[in-house]
Amino acid sequence: MAINRRQFFTFSAAGLGGAALFGARQAHAATTSGMPVLKAPEPPAELHIGCQQMLVPGKSFAERYDFLEANGYDRIEINGGNWEWLAKNVDEMAAAIKNRNLRFSVTCISARGNAGMADPTERRAVIDTTKSILESAAKLGATGVITVPARKKIDLPFPELRERYLKEILPEILAHAEKLGVCLIMEPLNRNETMFLRLVADAAAIARDANSPAIGVLGDFWHMTAEETNDMGAFISAGAYLKHVHIASRKTRKIPGVDSEADNYVLGFKGLKLIGYRGAISIEAGYPKGVSDDQKRKLLAQAAALMREQWAQA
Amino acid sequence: MAINRRQFFTFSAAGLGGAALFGARQAHAATTSGMPVLKAPEPPAELHIGCQQMLVPGKSFAERYDFLEANGYDRIEINGGNWEWLAKNVDEMAAAIKNRNLRFSVTCISARGNAGMADPTERRAVIDTTKSILESAAKLGATGVITVPARKKIDLPFPELRERYLKEILPEILAHAEKLGVCLIMEPLNRNETMFLRLVADAAAIARDANSPAIGVLGDFWHMTAEETNDMGAFISAGAYLKHVHIASRKTRKIPGVDSEADNYVLGFKGLKLIGYRGAISIEAGYPKGVSDDQKRKLLAQAAALMREQWAQA
Repeated sequence: MAINRRQFFTFSAAGLGGAALFGARQAHAATTSGMPVLKAPEPPAELHIGCQQMLVPGKSFAERYDFLEANGYDRIEINGGNWEWLAKNVDEMAAAIKNRNLRFSVTCISARGNAGMADPTERRAVIDTTKSILESAAKLGATGVITVPARKKIDLPFPELRERYLKEILPEILAHAEKLGVCLIMEPLNRNETMFLRLVADAAAIARDANSPAIGVLGDFWHMTAEETNDMGAFISAGAYLKHVHIASRKTRKIPGVDSEADNYVLGFKGLKLIGYRGAISIEAGYPKGVSDDQKRKLLAQAAALMREQWAQA
Repeated sequence: MAINRRQFFTFSAAGLGGAALFGARQAHAATTSGMPVLKAPEPPAELHIGCQQMLVPGKSFAERYDFLEANGYDRIEINGGNWEWLAKNVDEMAAAIKNRNLRFSVTCISARGNAGMADPTERRAVIDTTKSILESAAKLGATGVITVPARKKIDLPFPELRERYLKEILPEILAHAEKLGVCLIMEPLNRNETMFLRLVADAAAIARDANSPAIGVLGDFWHMTAEETNDMGAFISAGAYLKHVHIASRKTRKIPGVDSEADNYVLGFKGLKLIGYRGAISIEAGYPKGVSDDQKRKLLAQAAALMREQWAQA
């Protein structure tokens, strides 16, 4: 649609004939106002740059962590397999991170099952395997465990799914998470992956309803590019529930910077500063086809620099 | 849950044993940041206080408008009946508002039909009666027409309803609205009235997808009290799509001020200032039981003063 907002209202006034008289009249009771009073959050926001570990070229966890530590990263996102793979690899990861200026942010590890299905064994599997992931995350000192409430395949009506998720799935998982001191972090996806939970504000509303100190939400710039009207508004709605941020290039979901000027995160970073965010901003993305390991390392180093630069601008 | 966020993380560190070592380590790459850079919107926000006309005691439109004009209001919200009632009363309302420092904001008038039903005659009725309301609104020089996409009674699956709403319902209504120079304004409700559209950010996402200069969204403080985690975040997500705001007391949906200190709108008003909002903030609410017309007038005058005071604080 080529008509912008200002043109539309000019057009409206012209098209209304006599009625436009009302619109043109000045209102006596109006008060014109500039910026609102906004307070800096206490404590202030901190930038922590992270990356999914398996994105980093390397033969071992230690080799991958070496690179991140040397290139402006201080948070590692745990990925690489399912809940069983994670349990098997916890000790090796814990050993590899020792004596480094790095810490684990969250796990991005698939549970089994599907909370969106009427079949109770599907929902039971989500609870059991998520609890296992939480235990591994606790052993690694991670902040939390990413979870996706539902994807495309859903046979429960949405209102029933929401109700069951809150009353049947979350309580048992969150009781376990509270004991372990680890958060369960719900990730909204874009419409190609789910219609159930697409907006950060909606995840925050579920988090509030769940009423547990162990619940949190994730904002993923990739999904937000498709779904949110305003990155700053989304992060403000998440507020203290925001425990993790994913970042990728905004056109093709590659390493930030690959899509050049489209990869602007400044408005979102303003929101993170406003809420005093101190979690990780962590890369979950792919590489352009056929790049070498050396090129991958260069892209990761540039991405960290880009985030730092845009954080300063925000 | 009595544990607050800070206590939770203290507890986490204590409970993790060896793993807590990772958490306690200082991150070398962190940048601590205060407030973001935010620009004042241009043009700046304006406060326009409105009220549904039938809330005002009076025997005629003119008598109701007299009161509003004399008591700090400059916007009238059109309510009082269905689309047929509206068409019949347009001339009388237009005559009553002449030569006043008042203008019509929006209509709050029920259409017939139900967009959430599989029966196509239900969806057809929504389109036809909404177009009639748009025509009346245009004659009155109103900004827009409030619509509720779906309420409790829905037999379409939610993803199909959203798709049909965007592809089948909105295009014909919006083409008509564009010709008339009037906006169609979608109102999210709270969960007791619908599960389909509850969040301002979700309405804004539909508005963006609809891609028309004649689409807008409404933020109603009453529904927002139940559904939003942050009034400011919600309004920022609405941005330029925000065309109308409803206001009521925040515990019992009465005239603002009736619920005393619960009736705080300052955070939301900050959001309105940030987006340069110039639409109406309009009362849609009830009265406490048994109040006289004199008491009603007093409550309305006090509500306008309360809004003005909190706007100044925001």
